[in-house]
Amino acid sequence: MAPNWTNLVRFISEEDGQIHLGEVDSSKYPDVGIAVVNGDRIAVNLVKGSIFDGIVTDITLHIARLLAPIGIEEVPIIRCLGLNYRDHAKEANMPIPDVPVLFLKPRTALNGPYPARINVPQIAQDGSSDYEAELSIVLSKSGRDIPESDAMEYVLGYTCSNDVSARTQQFKNSQWSFSKGLDGSCPLGPVLVSRSVIGDPHNLHIKAIHNGNVVQDSNTREMIFDIAKTIAFISQGTTLEMGTIIMTGTGPGIGAMRNPKVVLNDGDDIRVEVEKIGTLINKVYYE
Amino acid sequence: MAPNWTNLVRFISEEDGQIHLGEVDSSKYPDVGIAVVNGDRIAVNLVKGSIFDGIVTDITLHIARLLAPIGIEEVPIIRCLGLNYRDHAKEANMPIPDVPVLFLKPRTALNGPYPARINVPQIAQDGSSDYEAELSIVLSKSGRDIPESDAMEYVLGYTCSNDVSARTQQFKNSQWSFSKGLDGSCPLGPVLVSRSVIGDPHNLHIKAIHNGNVVQDSNTREMIFDIAKTIAFISQGTTLEMGTIIMTGTGPGIGAMRNPKVVLNDGDDIRVEVEKIGTLINKVYYE
Repeated sequence: MAPNWTNLVRFISEEDGQIHLGEVDSSKYPDVGIAVVNGDRIAVNLVKGSIFDGIVTDITLHIARLLAPIGIEEVPIIRCLGLNYRDHAKEANMPIPDVPVLFLKPRTALNGPYPARINVPQIAQDGSSDYEAELSIVLSKSGRDIPESDAMEYVLGYTCSNDVSARTQQFKNSQWSFSKGLDGSCPLGPVLVSRSVIGDPHNLHIKAIHNGNVVQDSNTREMIFDIAKTIAFISQGTTLEMGTIIMTGTGPGIGAMRNPKVVLNDGDDIRVEVEKIGTLINKVYYE
Repeated sequence: MAPNWTNLVRFISEEDGQIHLGEVDSSKYPDVGIAVVNGDRIAVNLVKGSIFDGIVTDITLHIARLLAPIGIEEVPIIRCLGLNYRDHAKEANMPIPDVPVLFLKPRTALNGPYPARINVPQIAQDGSSDYEAELSIVLSKSGRDIPESDAMEYVLGYTCSNDVSARTQQFKNSQWSFSKGLDGSCPLGPVLVSRSVIGDPHNLHIKAIHNGNVVQDSNTREMIFDIAKTIAFISQGTTLEMGTIIMTGTGPGIGAMRNPKVVLNDGDDIRVEVEKIGTLINKVYYE
């Protein structure tokens, strides 16, 4: 059965302390991430089923704790693009890549929105913990060798994400899997917005906000490889499993390239805001 | 309960056509991979339980088809080291890395021994499909921030593997996830040999044999980061989940660096032979 949710959250309810899916009334709560930080009591309609086939009911629940919109047991892997924004490639003084620069995060990187924290482990407590505001998609079904013309049918929905990076480790290693794969280095959420609601995903304002200062400010139209091209390319000879998260790259303004540099320090507030989706908020915690 | 197998295979049995685990009598079958290719009928003792807790029984079964020693549903991810052999770094004219060069393959890369084939998709049928003979380990339990002194306790066993690589794609991309992550690009097996049987894993002869010619011939003592150092490093701030496969890198003689070059062509026979474990054999098939 096709799902009929449009603005999906995953949460622990006030009512029974269990994990549920819920449909948010976006006219009442245009930004669930902000509402939660403000301490608002948020009513949602229970969604029965999984994120892949969930049906909205008329049962009302209240959010006790927001979670990532998809659970770790449903995420096989997180596929990420590097250098996929023209304005970021320019900032990094790197040539526009000819092919998508793909790296992987393990599912153990998955993290939730506030009150979930970005836990910075000792190895990244060296003044190099950094943010990257990204639009992410969740795949609705598995596929391989997906033609560009069919690719958007594999998009279940869109959400905000943060490609948390340990820059010292990143810059001393040709491969980014370690420095970008630490536990909790992929905060995701809070709302998964369906493809139908988003319309054109390549015309969305995207920002990172660090302790109240806008540090990244771009638009998804800056993507070098759009979402259909990305799915078509990375599915060549490669099965993309249902529930795969694809992080589509970041714009300019990452902490390491700002002057002066910006670092995720203990206690900081870091937000990823995407137009039509809302705000992913996390506090930073040095373990 | 602690497992008590020493030479484990996963297979479909002649008797019931189902998947089972079995204990091989290594005095009778010192190389199961070769025996299967020779058409030998191989008797094993049924192992009850999972690879993590399996107990050898006195029930005899016969192998109808060999499989990878661990199933995809038990493998969260495949963590791989690049440039981890001194003699290979020298061949590649690369400096000895200061830190382990970690990249990831998705679990969909998992492949079995003969009769499972290495299916080369169209994008790699450009004279650049290549082999890398590697010793792999399977983790017995999950852990994070594992001290080097405890690391070997996380090793369930050792097996042969082949880090199949699409070199054209690899050399045009800074990140290796796409070119080394194609479906079936991690043949594994056939026998998982327990840690107790292997003893010192850093003194094993390792070879690749292409259509009968030895093309890689090294020893695991050439590893730059030994297995304990690797586990300690890559578990920093990072949960390594039970069932994770770690590929420990390759020696010199990869096809792209030979003169003349060697390529995995349609119909080729490629073997990875590791002392005390046996031979992982695959035929190459161009899709």
